[in-house]
Amino acid sequence: MTRPKVEAVRWVGGAVELIDQRRLPAALVRRRYRSVEAVAKAIETLQVRGAPAIGITAAYGVCVGALRAPTRDRAAFRRQVAQAVARLRRTRPTAVNLAWALARMQRVLLEHPRDSVPAWRRRLLAEARAIHTEDRQLCAAIGRAGAALLRSGDIVMTHCNTGSLATGGIGTAFGVLATAQAQGKRLHVMACEARPVWQGARLTMWELAQYGISATLICDTAAASMMARRGGRRIAAVIVGADRIAANGDTANKIGTYGLALLARAHHIPFYIAAPSSTVDVATPSGRQIPIEERPATEVTTPLGLRVAPRGARAANPAFDVTPHRLITGIITERGVLRPPYRSSLRTLRRPR
Amino acid sequence: MTRPKVEAVRWVGGAVELIDQRRLPAALVRRRYRSVEAVAKAIETLQVRGAPAIGITAAYGVCVGALRAPTRDRAAFRRQVAQAVARLRRTRPTAVNLAWALARMQRVLLEHPRDSVPAWRRRLLAEARAIHTEDRQLCAAIGRAGAALLRSGDIVMTHCNTGSLATGGIGTAFGVLATAQAQGKRLHVMACEARPVWQGARLTMWELAQYGISATLICDTAAASMMARRGGRRIAAVIVGADRIAANGDTANKIGTYGLALLARAHHIPFYIAAPSSTVDVATPSGRQIPIEERPATEVTTPLGLRVAPRGARAANPAFDVTPHRLITGIITERGVLRPPYRSSLRTLRRPR
Repeated sequence: MTRPKVEAVRWVGGAVELIDQRRLPAALVRRRYRSVEAVAKAIETLQVRGAPAIGITAAYGVCVGALRAPTRDRAAFRRQVAQAVARLRRTRPTAVNLAWALARMQRVLLEHPRDSVPAWRRRLLAEARAIHTEDRQLCAAIGRAGAALLRSGDIVMTHCNTGSLATGGIGTAFGVLATAQAQGKRLHVMACEARPVWQGARLTMWELAQYGISATLICDTAAASMMARRGGRRIAAVIVGADRIAANGDTANKIGTYGLALLARAHHIPFYIAAPSSTVDVATPSGRQIPIEERPATEVTTPLGLRVAPRGARAANPAFDVTPHRLITGIITERGVLRPPYRSSLRTLRRPR
Repeated sequence: MTRPKVEAVRWVGGAVELIDQRRLPAALVRRRYRSVEAVAKAIETLQVRGAPAIGITAAYGVCVGALRAPTRDRAAFRRQVAQAVARLRRTRPTAVNLAWALARMQRVLLEHPRDSVPAWRRRLLAEARAIHTEDRQLCAAIGRAGAALLRSGDIVMTHCNTGSLATGGIGTAFGVLATAQAQGKRLHVMACEARPVWQGARLTMWELAQYGISATLICDTAAASMMARRGGRRIAAVIVGADRIAANGDTANKIGTYGLALLARAHHIPFYIAAPSSTVDVATPSGRQIPIEERPATEVTTPLGLRVAPRGARAANPAFDVTPHRLITGIITERGVLRPPYRSSLRTLRRPR
């Protein structure tokens, strides 16, 4: 199993420890968060991002809350844990892994209603650790399933960051690349920078260097012309992650993904989503029902503090878009590569193995 | 005729005066250039950009060279003018207006072989001024032709900057917007930021504010989801400029244009090119023959000095892409809106009026 080279989230001495991803690639800074509010703020301000990593962080965030909740009053403890869950759920609306992880944490108390507070604390921490460990295993399985799609010499385009910084393991789309490379396949990755927050430039290019994978960074605007390149080698596939997959296969992911899917279709390039089953939301029938987070306009007008638009300029900043299922060649999951029609193939994920 | 609110290029006291567009929107700084080399460097470093503005600047650049060439030796004068033309032509390969303007300047000497050096100088300056004035008129005519395509309430998407900063007049695609607005049509412009150099964010948003046109800035990654928006008003058209139009209608323009054309097609949104006939290069049969400038990787990795990629990261930075003619709904020129097949409709531009 390909090991992650870096851990985005850790549970250390009763605190959540995160790599502050706003500082990468300039500096690798780890910070510890000892209150629910601090963990929530870290998620909101993108110190940690990536759907699976957010889910893991939120689960540990509940543990932080549980540690600080009263020990002698079981009702008060439950109330405070419920408040922690509610606060953490409010942080970001689009990725479903957050709600999924928090629901698992809540179930712990519901399923053991007679436990003592210390026992609840132990169970909550065990559940958060399980979510984390499982995600590591899911990433590995996704990596194996997806690597089988790639051949040595392939050029693969990806968007945003889906690696160790975004998950509990080697990543989703990134895990596919890392696994193929570990299998001895020589890939070349074309990484889109992913404006506005540059997760492609700042995080994916950094992670690719950690794994020694050959890569070229491009502006998002160059994706179409790279796909059309004549003479040179063609792009073999586009592989990206997901923040929520609806029951029909429509997929919310980083803004720009839908455009890449349309461009890939126009150039007859296979377009894959890579995501664990925790990203699938069967309660959401289609992409129309997925809430799309609108982030501050300053990410567009003044990126990382650099003013690029005149003062007073209005900007729209949807953080995600929805790719309709008909544009998706396959969804790479821990159970293999699902194919259309997704309404039925996604259902297989719910069966016990 | 809608008047330009700002002049990107001026001939002042024997020098070329440019607005240093690298400084916008933070500061409106004008600089004077008194040598051919200084003018060439200004073009190469994007102090002035936009195909028509580059042509005008280069024409005045020849005048700067002519002023400094020897007066008493006619052969030496011609040699120095030829050297100025050669140096200025080397600055940027994709926009054809540059070569077109320089060819016009060269023709002045060829057509008046017996003139004195002072007469040549006067003729060269008159020709440069004519190129400048004509472009102003071409912009006005393009604006009128294109404005007829728009209705009050339309949302129009544009890319890069095509306004007064890019031309000798009110602009090409931007001129269409400014003219429609001056006709009392209330538009809303959706401006793509245009990474890597942010001409959309820095220049177009600034010019739109000068004209009081309502506008929203978006990251290039958000274009597809803006086109797909349900519920809200639809985008009525995408209108962009051009750096070179081949004989078959294939059009080179700012990187990202080809992607927007594909996205517009997928959403059934009309996609227009707006450009003067000086942008049409009948000597280039199709887009395959248009040279695409590759600019420094630092524009991608370290935009405006801000490091967004790890040190040592490789980046590709094509400054332009080619939109195949089949994706272009119409080409808005000073002679009206040309329609496919472009091989024949573009030919009408060469007929005298």
